[in-house]
Amino acid sequence: MAKYHCPDSKTLQSLGDMANQLRIDSIRATQASNSGHPTSCASAAEIMSVLFFHQMRYSTEFPRDPASDRFVMSKGHACPILYAAWAEAGLFSVEELLNLRKLSSDLEGHPTPRLNFIDVATGSLGQGLGCAAGMAYTGKYFDKADYRVYCLIGDGESAEGSIWEALAFSSFYKLDNLVAIFDINRLGQSDPAMLQHHMDMYEARLKAFGWETYVVDGHDVEVLCKALYDASTVKGRPTCILAKTYKGRGFPDIEDMLNWHGKPLGDKADKVIAHIKENMQSQGPFDLRPQSITTSVPTVDITNIHLDKPPNYKIGEEVATRLAYGVALAKLGSNNSRVIALDGDTKNSTFSDKFKAAHPDRYIECFIAEQNLVGVAIGCATRDRTVAFCSTFAAFFSRAFDQIRMGAISQTNVNFAGSHAGVSIGEDGPSQMALEDLAMFRSVPGSTVFYPSDAVSCERAVELAANTKGVCFIRTSRPNIATIYANDETFEIGKAKVVRKSNKDHVTIIGCCVTLVEAMKAADKLAIDGVHARIIDPFTLKPLDAATILSNARETGGLIVTVEDHYEWGGLGDAVAGALSEEKDITIKKLAVKEVPRSGKPAELMEKYGISANCIVKAVHSMLKLDA
Amino acid sequence: MAKYHCPDSKTLQSLGDMANQLRIDSIRATQASNSGHPTSCASAAEIMSVLFFHQMRYSTEFPRDPASDRFVMSKGHACPILYAAWAEAGLFSVEELLNLRKLSSDLEGHPTPRLNFIDVATGSLGQGLGCAAGMAYTGKYFDKADYRVYCLIGDGESAEGSIWEALAFSSFYKLDNLVAIFDINRLGQSDPAMLQHHMDMYEARLKAFGWETYVVDGHDVEVLCKALYDASTVKGRPTCILAKTYKGRGFPDIEDMLNWHGKPLGDKADKVIAHIKENMQSQGPFDLRPQSITTSVPTVDITNIHLDKPPNYKIGEEVATRLAYGVALAKLGSNNSRVIALDGDTKNSTFSDKFKAAHPDRYIECFIAEQNLVGVAIGCATRDRTVAFCSTFAAFFSRAFDQIRMGAISQTNVNFAGSHAGVSIGEDGPSQMALEDLAMFRSVPGSTVFYPSDAVSCERAVELAANTKGVCFIRTSRPNIATIYANDETFEIGKAKVVRKSNKDHVTIIGCCVTLVEAMKAADKLAIDGVHARIIDPFTLKPLDAATILSNARETGGLIVTVEDHYEWGGLGDAVAGALSEEKDITIKKLAVKEVPRSGKPAELMEKYGISANCIVKAVHSMLKLDA
Repeated sequence: MAKYHCPDSKTLQSLGDMANQLRIDSIRATQASNSGHPTSCASAAEIMSVLFFHQMRYSTEFPRDPASDRFVMSKGHACPILYAAWAEAGLFSVEELLNLRKLSSDLEGHPTPRLNFIDVATGSLGQGLGCAAGMAYTGKYFDKADYRVYCLIGDGESAEGSIWEALAFSSFYKLDNLVAIFDINRLGQSDPAMLQHHMDMYEARLKAFGWETYVVDGHDVEVLCKALYDASTVKGRPTCILAKTYKGRGFPDIEDMLNWHGKPLGDKADKVIAHIKENMQSQGPFDLRPQSITTSVPTVDITNIHLDKPPNYKIGEEVATRLAYGVALAKLGSNNSRVIALDGDTKNSTFSDKFKAAHPDRYIECFIAEQNLVGVAIGCATRDRTVAFCSTFAAFFSRAFDQIRMGAISQTNVNFAGSHAGVSIGEDGPSQMALEDLAMFRSVPGSTVFYPSDAVSCERAVELAANTKGVCFIRTSRPNIATIYANDETFEIGKAKVVRKSNKDHVTIIGCCVTLVEAMKAADKLAIDGVHARIIDPFTLKPLDAATILSNARETGGLIVTVEDHYEWGGLGDAVAGALSEEKDITIKKLAVKEVPRSGKPAELMEKYGISANCIVKAVHSMLKLDA
Repeated sequence: MAKYHCPDSKTLQSLGDMANQLRIDSIRATQASNSGHPTSCASAAEIMSVLFFHQMRYSTEFPRDPASDRFVMSKGHACPILYAAWAEAGLFSVEELLNLRKLSSDLEGHPTPRLNFIDVATGSLGQGLGCAAGMAYTGKYFDKADYRVYCLIGDGESAEGSIWEALAFSSFYKLDNLVAIFDINRLGQSDPAMLQHHMDMYEARLKAFGWETYVVDGHDVEVLCKALYDASTVKGRPTCILAKTYKGRGFPDIEDMLNWHGKPLGDKADKVIAHIKENMQSQGPFDLRPQSITTSVPTVDITNIHLDKPPNYKIGEEVATRLAYGVALAKLGSNNSRVIALDGDTKNSTFSDKFKAAHPDRYIECFIAEQNLVGVAIGCATRDRTVAFCSTFAAFFSRAFDQIRMGAISQTNVNFAGSHAGVSIGEDGPSQMALEDLAMFRSVPGSTVFYPSDAVSCERAVELAANTKGVCFIRTSRPNIATIYANDETFEIGKAKVVRKSNKDHVTIIGCCVTLVEAMKAADKLAIDGVHARIIDPFTLKPLDAATILSNARETGGLIVTVEDHYEWGGLGDAVAGALSEEKDITIKKLAVKEVPRSGKPAELMEKYGISANCIVKAVHSMLKLDA
């Protein structure tokens, strides 16, 4: 490790001037858009100048160079200064900054990867560090490269528990390539932050969480240069720079005052800019440029990932789809060395432990912290470095809905596998039952929602997910389910399977997994009364194969029964009703759970909550009666 | 404060024996159900014995006596020992424990308030402390009573960020009536917890978060008695008891071993019970009973809450529904002294600051920690002590979906107000836009989802929510919207308003707030072409007034257009399609946002994402063409 050399005074002056230039750029941009957060930019100006023009190794030729250092602006509302830094570094014209927040520009109100220098969208606070930790984990353990990861965090957002999950995770895994910089500017949106400028309290918390800490004056470029150098020498733990700053720093009559959050400076702007200029030795150009990239990373290929062996089940063999998930994931891992798995201390329930057993170096235990589990997965998947599969009980992904929502904005390709769907888990009771997960994952734009009905289709769902862009969700179930598909059956996203059919069917029943089993039983019972049911397994709920459902429904008198182990709002029934809403002469009866269920045996619960074979038989009879 | 007297040796022996009796009860119950978590009970046995038979003041006559001490078992999977404690205290027969997890019993797999001694459901980990903090805040600041709140937390779940949000909140508000007991039994479900038995690391973290700490042997009843007494003497900060324990304590060949999470003891049970009995001096009855309640609380009435003044707007006056929310909330607070408001540092955006200005003592600033915001609100609302309104940007309630989901299981009556709905917020971009909130809140069982379209209806929504059981969600918008209802208009849950109607209408358009405005504009444009549109404001999306929608649709040729500032999955369109799915001859065209939007001006975005007046006009014309 090279010894520290303090930058010469000219460089320090330039870094200080650059910080002020970034302030001016931020003011001008937010004046042009007449909205935005210039005061939140101002507190971070010296930090950004030192990071982008002294410390970080990156390239304006190829901002997503996988060997470059990463930067995550967790306090996304300060993005004008991030855009300004890249513009001043030469990626695009400074004049372009005046298009901030315009529909025609990718310089959005909060950062998104529509910009080629953004890896993850931010703006919902407290989410950056989990993603940064995923990048750092990938750098240290998968890429084994010495690129470093920097994350800028606001003091307001440090109240978010997700930050503390990420802090605990990062020290546990000794992520010494990760540097968190807390921009402690004292003021939140509507009040001072809880700890105000109590730097000692921040330091005690960060130290207790296992981080190396440096408490610094965040407006002193020399001190920041030294702290960032020191951070690079720390081994075995991540480093945190606790920067005492002022919101609106350098803005007379605005600095350190409440009621200036998220407001452009309006008619004060010119005066403030003039004042800032007085503090600059030079108005530029500044003799500063980014540090060059010094590391290299392995070339990786995450395309065309497949099961190294086909599914191997016998028709009728009873296997839980959650087990098939684990088996398939291990197979994918054998086919491609960049497939990784993450879980939140449920690996022996979700069966991601099958992957861990086969590929221990590519399994990340994230403990009971689902927000961070998802954040780390998103970070790991940036720049296409890994194909991440992230599992827990499907119910507990609700803990990370905001992260998943932001993941969609981040254009993430993370795959989510949620086990223990619905009342069919039985005795554990409602807290452990996923009954709103389909509504949640369906609402995510660009998502693919798999709900495989047996082990064979589940293995193929896992394979398809690995090769599908966007958020993928695979819903798995706890009970053992008879295998219904041959091992060589092929599956496609958006293609349903008609699993039972005659030329005299009276109704189409749509079910998935446990309710598909009930549908089959119901069909047998109905047949005794001379009523014939066609049965469809949708395989994916999103996209839904509306064409197959419609053509079959038309052949069965327009009558459809949907049956799902999920609440009645936003799941299978609403999906089918929504997809066919423009069709006439189709009637759909939706069977679903309508109230908070109880503990009990799976079969008892399916009966009580209206999704058993008996309930389906009743529903079909009532529909046929009405229709007659 | 009385001086500490150590319990006599007989009492200590009885407390130790009771701990072992609770172990035996837990084993028997989980043997009977053939599922459950006896080892997670065993680590907490002495803690539970000392709490329930020495420290806590409560009554088996009236378990929800508002003056009694509260107990929250955050590690809900250990509930068999909680049930055992109440049984041994005399609330119900010990034999009843053998009905654990049966459909016929309220002794569910994880605790729910179906039991009269449970205030909040637990089982999704890390949620108990936020609720407990809400109870403690209520005790200290609203009830001004000296009941105390105890929360038992598992070490595994202490990885959840929500715990750290609650820890920070509790010390900030000096909740010295709150005691958190960490049952540090080293082992999680599938692996050791991150910090294992590093008690020093736990202590450093808790101290740094501003808590008084006692590190104790969690299996020593005498030490626990002393620590709980000491906790009662601490002023100005909450207390944490860090109890070093062993999972499966007292179970030979099982204690402190992995792979025993969530498993009944099977054929080892008899041997284990015999071993435990050997360690007991007496097999009971134990001369132990709960401490009596020593405090009193004010009588409160949270029924029949109304606006102290009616809405006061002029037709056509432009007012944002978020502002009307704040105005109405302040009025409710003037009418009833138990109405409270909570926000996560967005009060000057959601306008909950109107409430704070009028009733500063009843506003709780929860800072940027939405999980805890919701947890505290749920805690404050237990035992009907307050009517809680909880606000932030609607998008950020996704951060607390798991807490809201669990809130439904907890039978909470908390009201959620989410502002900044949809693309109509404009320049801030997708991270700040709620576009999946309707799907989320609709999926919650028993929820009521209000989507008021002007200031008058928003004020009435707030009033109705205050008097409605279950989770209520009020969606508010950022832009100013012309008032359309007279101040004396009456509103009901599940009753839509037909806001435009003629006897020659060709189509029914359903919109809410910003899209209702677009629907009106569209109707004006359509009228020029001789096409007449009926327009419906649903007011509540759940329950949805299917009857009014259906009868109007039938009068307009069965044609419906829905238009919503929300993603197309799970919102208004799916709700209408789902509600009318059993009707023939109804066709519904759904206009909604279908992709991650950009930053831009509200009107530009509504146009680009297909929910403007122009888009409605086009949709209507295409439907009429198809229908012709």
